[in-house]
Amino acid sequence: MKVLVLNCGSSSLKYQLIDMSNEEVLCIGLVERIGIEGSILKQEKDGVEGKLIIEQPMKNHQDAIKLVLDGVVDAKFGGVKEISEVEAVGHRVVHGGEKFAGSVKITDEVMVALEECVELAPLHNPANIMGIKACEEILPGVPMVGVFDTAFHQTMPKKSYLYGLPHELYTKYGVRRYGFHGTSHKYVSQRAAAMLGKNIEDVKIITCHLGNGASIAAVDGGKCVDTSMGFTPLEGLIMGTRCGDIDAAILPFLMEKEGLDAKGLSDLMNKKSGVYGMTGISSDFRDIEGAASNGDEKAQVALDAYVQRVQKYIGAYAAEMNGVDAVVFTAGVGENGIEIRESIASNMEFLGMNLDKEANKVRGKERVISTEDSRVKILLIPTNEELMIARDTVALVK
Amino acid sequence: MKVLVLNCGSSSLKYQLIDMSNEEVLCIGLVERIGIEGSILKQEKDGVEGKLIIEQPMKNHQDAIKLVLDGVVDAKFGGVKEISEVEAVGHRVVHGGEKFAGSVKITDEVMVALEECVELAPLHNPANIMGIKACEEILPGVPMVGVFDTAFHQTMPKKSYLYGLPHELYTKYGVRRYGFHGTSHKYVSQRAAAMLGKNIEDVKIITCHLGNGASIAAVDGGKCVDTSMGFTPLEGLIMGTRCGDIDAAILPFLMEKEGLDAKGLSDLMNKKSGVYGMTGISSDFRDIEGAASNGDEKAQVALDAYVQRVQKYIGAYAAEMNGVDAVVFTAGVGENGIEIRESIASNMEFLGMNLDKEANKVRGKERVISTEDSRVKILLIPTNEELMIARDTVALVK
Repeated sequence: MKVLVLNCGSSSLKYQLIDMSNEEVLCIGLVERIGIEGSILKQEKDGVEGKLIIEQPMKNHQDAIKLVLDGVVDAKFGGVKEISEVEAVGHRVVHGGEKFAGSVKITDEVMVALEECVELAPLHNPANIMGIKACEEILPGVPMVGVFDTAFHQTMPKKSYLYGLPHELYTKYGVRRYGFHGTSHKYVSQRAAAMLGKNIEDVKIITCHLGNGASIAAVDGGKCVDTSMGFTPLEGLIMGTRCGDIDAAILPFLMEKEGLDAKGLSDLMNKKSGVYGMTGISSDFRDIEGAASNGDEKAQVALDAYVQRVQKYIGAYAAEMNGVDAVVFTAGVGENGIEIRESIASNMEFLGMNLDKEANKVRGKERVISTEDSRVKILLIPTNEELMIARDTVALVK
Repeated sequence: MKVLVLNCGSSSLKYQLIDMSNEEVLCIGLVERIGIEGSILKQEKDGVEGKLIIEQPMKNHQDAIKLVLDGVVDAKFGGVKEISEVEAVGHRVVHGGEKFAGSVKITDEVMVALEECVELAPLHNPANIMGIKACEEILPGVPMVGVFDTAFHQTMPKKSYLYGLPHELYTKYGVRRYGFHGTSHKYVSQRAAAMLGKNIEDVKIITCHLGNGASIAAVDGGKCVDTSMGFTPLEGLIMGTRCGDIDAAILPFLMEKEGLDAKGLSDLMNKKSGVYGMTGISSDFRDIEGAASNGDEKAQVALDAYVQRVQKYIGAYAAEMNGVDAVVFTAGVGENGIEIRESIASNMEFLGMNLDKEANKVRGKERVISTEDSRVKILLIPTNEELMIARDTVALVK
């Protein structure tokens, strides 16, 4: 079965066409500036030099998806000859609220439930819904599946997902920890168990998804028991432009000092903070590392703080699970940040974590990077959310 | 030297008169409802039955302190014959900002600096300042010392005290982690080293100050390296009425949903949250334990969440220090909550923490409550902030 995987953002769209008979990626692409001047689609195919580039106005996701379908049947860069070969579409959906603890075949009822989740992810879910509706129009009758960023975390116990806030905020508005990057945490935790040669039911894993957005999850016996992102993807680690954990009382203070409203506060914390806000340099960790190595003190402090927060969560989740068998690094920084991984895994001997510094000198490859005698295994596992989405899609449409 | 220790709140005042030749508490009292109808002073003296009660209008802290001085020379419940025997006054001050990394003798310059810290603790510092000014008037010439809740935490490194927020919020407004309960964390960490028979420079200690307000500190070699309260005493653990750690993005969400302003948000998080908000029952942990044992599910979840947050911080701080030698419990819940201590110390074997359940059956006594073979010692140490204030006072006025 050939599955098209779509990840729709508000003005962008990432896609992959995957042949699920052998899990081969047939083509992969990205559309940017949907509904904005300068719309562009770029697509690549493994083994074929160059890129398919389509620059033409796309006023909405429907326009974009039409071009994506042109791309996937492109003679040179495409993956199929006829669009009818695309047998199913898997959609990434950011927020499934408490309604979706797993992936789901898209039906009218599901669409209603998705609309109800918009309130919880007003920036993300509407784009996901637009993508689904556009596909319905352009590919009528092709089965579709929704795969949620939040679903894997729905196994968290109440003590993990409830905040110390008035209970009616939970019952009235659904204010609770949801967690995100669930597809990635699920994928790498399953891979980790496989790499360790163990049943996932028997292992305690801490998965560090360190990208521009970053989150950590505690996975006990294959089930998420806690994760660092919360009601929104703001909480937890320091990120590229997001502040992560702060004293929430800073907000009323800033409201009075700076006259910020809800949007102003949200923008400050989501777009102007993180290592970017701490340094004024960049949200890209490579730039921060570069500045730090050139002696920029703020960049060094930002890196140190970033590393410390990851270490604190590893310690916290080890406490929550009463131990840990494996720590996994994944996503952009986790897969490529050799020095950041080394810093995180340093001075963690108390936990039985010993990094093999030579083995760690690798980017984007599945590898055990702890020493032979390290009680806690440290694993580098490139994430593959698209493959997970495609697998769930196959499982549900078969 | 006889030292009067004063802890002034906005409408209350706690005091002790301590004979520092033997650290004996001569008398201890509490004034409530200062400036409100029904002002009352209650004072006790060890070994004397009954209480001194003075019910009379007190329109301000000056009125209250005058009555306190009447109390300390009371023939039956007092501690001295003449007020001139009170040789120094030690004041608890909540917020010393970055200006005070230790206790300080009160001078005109110090008063100016204290005024500058009011912005950071608008609810607490003004009362502390009122208390100091009232004493200056009533006891002219008697030396006074300010002892800060924040001072002990001033040794934190930047990576611990800076948030992932724009750096200018730190330079412009002093938005950073300060930490509170410092006098208590310092006292119990010093006592812990003494109980272990070790130099404090050689030990890693995690101090859990669990009262109605609660905070944890990581104390490495006698110096605080991190603590759970932050810019304000809101951050960190779930408390009686304070929410502790939450996703700060919940606030803009609630501003839009409930139309809350800065004060509304602050009240919600500080006064209507914590175990009180989670259960709707009480901010007193004994009530929550009672309800939980009667099958109240929300109460059980609140307790479980409370315990889990403490465990997470213990794990996080162990990671930050690459290990821990001792975990200390202190303050109301920490000293008296036998079952809560047992829950916190359970399932922490991965860290080498083993509670001696029999030894743990004690309230308010200095005691090792871990098993003989526990690699991490668990200690119960009643806090004594007043004694610390008196000691610092003696050291600075001598």
